[in-house]
Amino acid sequence: MAFTRIDHIGIVCHDLDATVAFYTDTFGFELIHTEDIESQGVREAILRVNGTDDGALSCLQLLTPLHEDSAVSRWLAERGPGVHHIAFGTDDVDAAAGELGRAGIRVLFDPPGTGSRGSRVTFLHPKDCHGVLTELVTLP
Amino acid sequence: MAFTRIDHIGIVCHDLDATVAFYTDTFGFELIHTEDIESQGVREAILRVNGTDDGALSCLQLLTPLHEDSAVSRWLAERGPGVHHIAFGTDDVDAAAGELGRAGIRVLFDPPGTGSRGSRVTFLHPKDCHGVLTELVTLP
Repeated sequence: MAFTRIDHIGIVCHDLDATVAFYTDTFGFELIHTEDIESQGVREAILRVNGTDDGALSCLQLLTPLHEDSAVSRWLAERGPGVHHIAFGTDDVDAAAGELGRAGIRVLFDPPGTGSRGSRVTFLHPKDCHGVLTELVTLP
Repeated sequence: MAFTRIDHIGIVCHDLDATVAFYTDTFGFELIHTEDIESQGVREAILRVNGTDDGALSCLQLLTPLHEDSAVSRWLAERGPGVHHIAFGTDDVDAAAGELGRAGIRVLFDPPGTGSRGSRVTFLHPKDCHGVLTELVTLP
C-alpha cells in the first residue's frame, strides 16, 4: 500500500460557478472537468493545480450539493463553505481499503465504489484519521 | 502571478506525536522536518507526500499549539482537529500579495513574513476565498 500523491483537496461551496470563477480568474488554475455525481448528490468542478511525480495531477475538487438531503448539503448547513476532505492517490484502492480495515480504520466503502471520471474511490472515517475525512483514489 | 503547486495542507491536531505516527506508520509518509514557529505559536511537523512538476514537494503540515492563547489553540477549541488551511507555492509571494490586495482580497501579512524552513509566506482571509484559509509560500 502506497499513497503517491495528493490527488485533490475537496472544497464545498454554495455557488459553484462563482467559486470556479474565483479559482480560475484570481488564482489562475485551469478548469479541466465538471460532472454530476448522483450517487453522492453533488456537482463537482475539477481544477488542475500541478503535475505530480507519479505521473498524475494534484487538483482542487469544488463541490456543491445537487439536492437538500445530500451529505454535502448537511455539511454546508452546519459548517459553511470550506475544505471538506483530502484525497490521496494510490494504485490499488481495493488493497488499501482491505489493509486499512484490518488495521482498525473504518473504511466507508469496502469494496470501493465509482468516483468521478471513472475513478475507484473510498473514504476513511474522519474520527479514525485525526479529524480529517480522507479519500483514497485509484485512477481508471 | 502563478501558483504552481499545492505546497502543503495544514492540519491541526491535539497530539502531534500521535498524529505524526498515524501518517508515517499507517499511510507511509516520510517525516522530513519539525520546527517550533514561535511567531505563530505552533509546533509543526512536515510530512512529504509527493514531488511536484515545479521541482518542489507537496506535503502535509501537522500543527499543534505551543500555548493556549495561540490562534491555532482557539481553532482547536472551537472546531476540533482537522484541516486548517491549504497552501499554494509561488515563486514570488510578495508580487502575489500585492496583486491580490489590489484585487480586493484581504492579505493578512503584506509584506509577507517568515514561515517554516526560512520560507516567505502570507495568508489570505478565508472570507475572501470562499471559506478557505489560504496560504501562499515562496521557498527560500
